[in-house]
Formats: sequence, C-alpha cells, structure tokens
Amino acid sequence: MVKWFSRKSGRIEVPRLRSRAGDAPTEKVALAEFAPDILGFLGRAAYVQLMIFENLSRAITNAPTTAAKTAIGKAAELSLGKHRALVAEITKAGGSPAEVMDPYTDVFDEFERLARGADWYESLITAYLSAGFFDDFYARLAAGLPSESHNRLVAIFSGESGEKVLAEYLQAAIDANPRLDSRLAMWGRRLVGDMMLAARSALVFPDHTRSTEAQVEPVFTELIAAHTRRMDALGLTA
Amino acid sequence: MVKWFSRKSGRIEVPRLRSRAGDAPTEKVALAEFAPDILGFLGRAAYVQLMIFENLSRAITNAPTTAAKTAIGKAAELSLGKHRALVAEITKAGGSPAEVMDPYTDVFDEFERLARGADWYESLITAYLSAGFFDDFYARLAAGLPSESHNRLVAIFSGESGEKVLAEYLQAAIDANPRLDSRLAMWGRRLVGDMMLAARSALVFPDHTRSTEAQVEPVFTELIAAHTRRMDALGLTA
Repeated sequence: MVKWFSRKSGRIEVPRLRSRAGDAPTEKVALAEFAPDILGFLGRAAYVQLMIFENLSRAITNAPTTAAKTAIGKAAELSLGKHRALVAEITKAGGSPAEVMDPYTDVFDEFERLARGADWYESLITAYLSAGFFDDFYARLAAGLPSESHNRLVAIFSGESGEKVLAEYLQAAIDANPRLDSRLAMWGRRLVGDMMLAARSALVFPDHTRSTEAQVEPVFTELIAAHTRRMDALGLTA
Repeated sequence: MVKWFSRKSGRIEVPRLRSRAGDAPTEKVALAEFAPDILGFLGRAAYVQLMIFENLSRAITNAPTTAAKTAIGKAAELSLGKHRALVAEITKAGGSPAEVMDPYTDVFDEFERLARGADWYESLITAYLSAGFFDDFYARLAAGLPSESHNRLVAIFSGESGEKVLAEYLQAAIDANPRLDSRLAMWGRRLVGDMMLAARSALVFPDHTRSTEAQVEPVFTELIAAHTRRMDALGLTA
C-alpha cells in the first residue's frame, strides 16, 4: 500500500535548478547560442509536456490504489496546464499550434516509446525524471530567445510540478520493496541517455565541429548533475 | 484530418440540463428521496470523474492529430479539476478520499471496461456521452443532500466541460466518414443501458417494490431525453 504522505517525505530533497541556473550564467549563455527560433523552441517544449502527460495518464490508469490515482492526477493536470500555456505562446508568436508541434512529434513519440517502462514503477520514475530534466533544459534554452517572451517562458517551466508527489510515491514503493531500488536505478541510468538525445535534437549547431559540441558540454554536465540529485533524493545511485 | 474549429460548429446544440431541471421540480424531488448519504454520494461522483478522465486520456494517446491531442487535453484537465473539487468535498465532509471512493471502484471500472470502445471514435463518443449523463445525474441526486453542500456540488457538476470540443471532433469525424454515423449511433444506444445500470447502483431503495422503481422512472426518462439530445446534436439516431 502506497501512502499519500510518506513518513519520510521530509527527507526528499527535490532539486531546484532555478537558483543554480542563476549562479551559472556562463553555461546559460553557452546553451542560448544554440537555441532554435522561437516557434521551433515552443513547438518542441509544448509537445514534450503532452508526452509527459501521456506517461502520467498511463500511471493513473495502472495505479495500484485510488489514492495514487488522485495524487498523480494532480501531476497530470499540471503538465496539461503547462502544455496549454505553451500552446498559447505559440498562438501569441503567430504560429498555428499543431503545425508548429508536428515536425517534432516523431522524436518525442520515439522517446516516449523507449521510456514507457515495463510496469507502473518504471513509468512513474520516467515521469518524475523526465519532467524535471526537460523543464530544466527548456528553462535554460529559453535564455537564448527574445527577452520579451523569456520571463514568461521561464515562469512556465519553473511553475508548480508534480515532482514532489511523484517522489513520495516512488519513495514509499522503494521502502516497501527492497529489490525495487536496483531495478529503478538501472532504469534511471538508461533513461538519462535517451533524454540527452531527445534534448540535443533541439539544438541548432551552425557547424558540427568538436568545438561547438564542447561548448554545449558544460550545460549537459549541469543537467546530469540535477538528474543525479533527483536519483539521490530517492536513495538511488545514478 | 480533423479540424480544430469545424465549419459546422455553429450547428451543434449542446443540451443544457440545468434550466430544464429547474422546470421539473417534481422529478428532482423524486430522485432526491433515494440519494445515498453524503459520503456515498461524493465517493461515487469523484470516482466517476476519474473514470471519464481515463477514457479521455486514452483518446489523447490515440488521437490521430496533434491538434486533437491539445483540444482533448483541455477536456481531460476539466475532468481532473472536477475530480479534485469532489475529493476536497470528501475531506470537508470528514472523509478520507481513497477510503470513501474505494467501495465504488468496481462498478465504475466495469463500466469503463464495457464503454472503452474498439477505436478512437468510440472512446471519444463514450467520453462525450458519459460525461454529460453522469454530470446530469449527480446534479439531480445532489438535491437530496444537505442544503449546505448542495449549491457547491451543483456548481461543480454544471461547471465548464469538454462537451463542446468533443462534439466538434465527433462531428468533423462523422462528416469526413459517412459510414461512421451508423456505427456510433449503435454504440450510443448500447452505452445508454450501461450508463443507466451504473447510475442506478447509486440509488438507495428502502424496499424493492415496483412503486419505488416507478417513482424513479421519470428521472431516468429525463436523463435519456438529454442523452437523445446529445446524439441528435451529432445527427445520430438515439
């Protein structure tokens, strides 16, 4: 039985990238150089939220308890809200939402297929890890966009998320089943590679030299560090 | 290709049961007599919204276009919002949400299984018809509850729903595929029986005489009339 409020919830430290990003202007600028145009950015970011929602809705359908359905429902609602806010930004920027998202659906549908997981726990940790990873990534990338929309977009990505409640359910599941941690640790390590590939596909490299790749590297190092903190919060080795 | 705004959307008349219910106080009172206690009522009503959400989320995953995913996403968000509002009412009434919902999950999970449909169109019309039917039913049943919570609950059930956008997608699909209407008409006729059974299970009959059943009959006649108007709005024979 998964409990709504885990006794250990005080232990869970959900990483907060916003303040860190503020501490590391160098990396932010490095990634901003490779930001796609505004519509290319918004199309990807809006579709990613749909993909995270689809993962969460599967976790609701397969949830072992009614309490879990209700709790994860809140996380799903937040992802749909972010999706809708980004769709509104597409319209504001003069785009037609579906047309703007369509070029990027294949890469994220493929990620979703790879990241779906074999059972409830794997799809739950996918939602927990990927929502955090992509919110961090797009918040950083937004720094390269026109400053007029910049603040609004960062506010969307750093808005309320289901991360805390998902961490609580994962923590309770790991506590109740000692063999689950090694399986989820392995799953998280696999996932980080797939997330990096999906994220990299958003970057526009003027030339594919080693030097531009090297410029982007510190940002990915930061994203992986945040991923590691999310794994650590559950006591999993990244 | 399903269009976001159907040219024919002006034609769709979504039935509005609120004003009709106001015109028919006799039937309202008849149903109110058989209302379960407040927690029994809220437990069923909250879980029904989750079931409607699960149906909608399947329709999002299987949607043929990105535009449809976004549009149905709004409907799913509204169902989750209603679920959350009803869960808050359970807490307000002194209940533990999951414990209060759990006795009723079987009957609605069984309905969901029967009503899932074989393809995208069937699950979409299930969401359209069942969201309307159950919102009407619980709004009427709420009349039998303490007046303190009555108004808040009626406001939840008669709040914004995804009915209009679902009707637009169904209409566009029917227009684009002439053979779809007879299949969806048949599906709608089958569904009404399953919805009646699931709804009836919420009523508390002091004795199972024919006279109490007869007292409830006019209300179901009204609910079927509203269902027929929803079918008519799509040009389908109920």
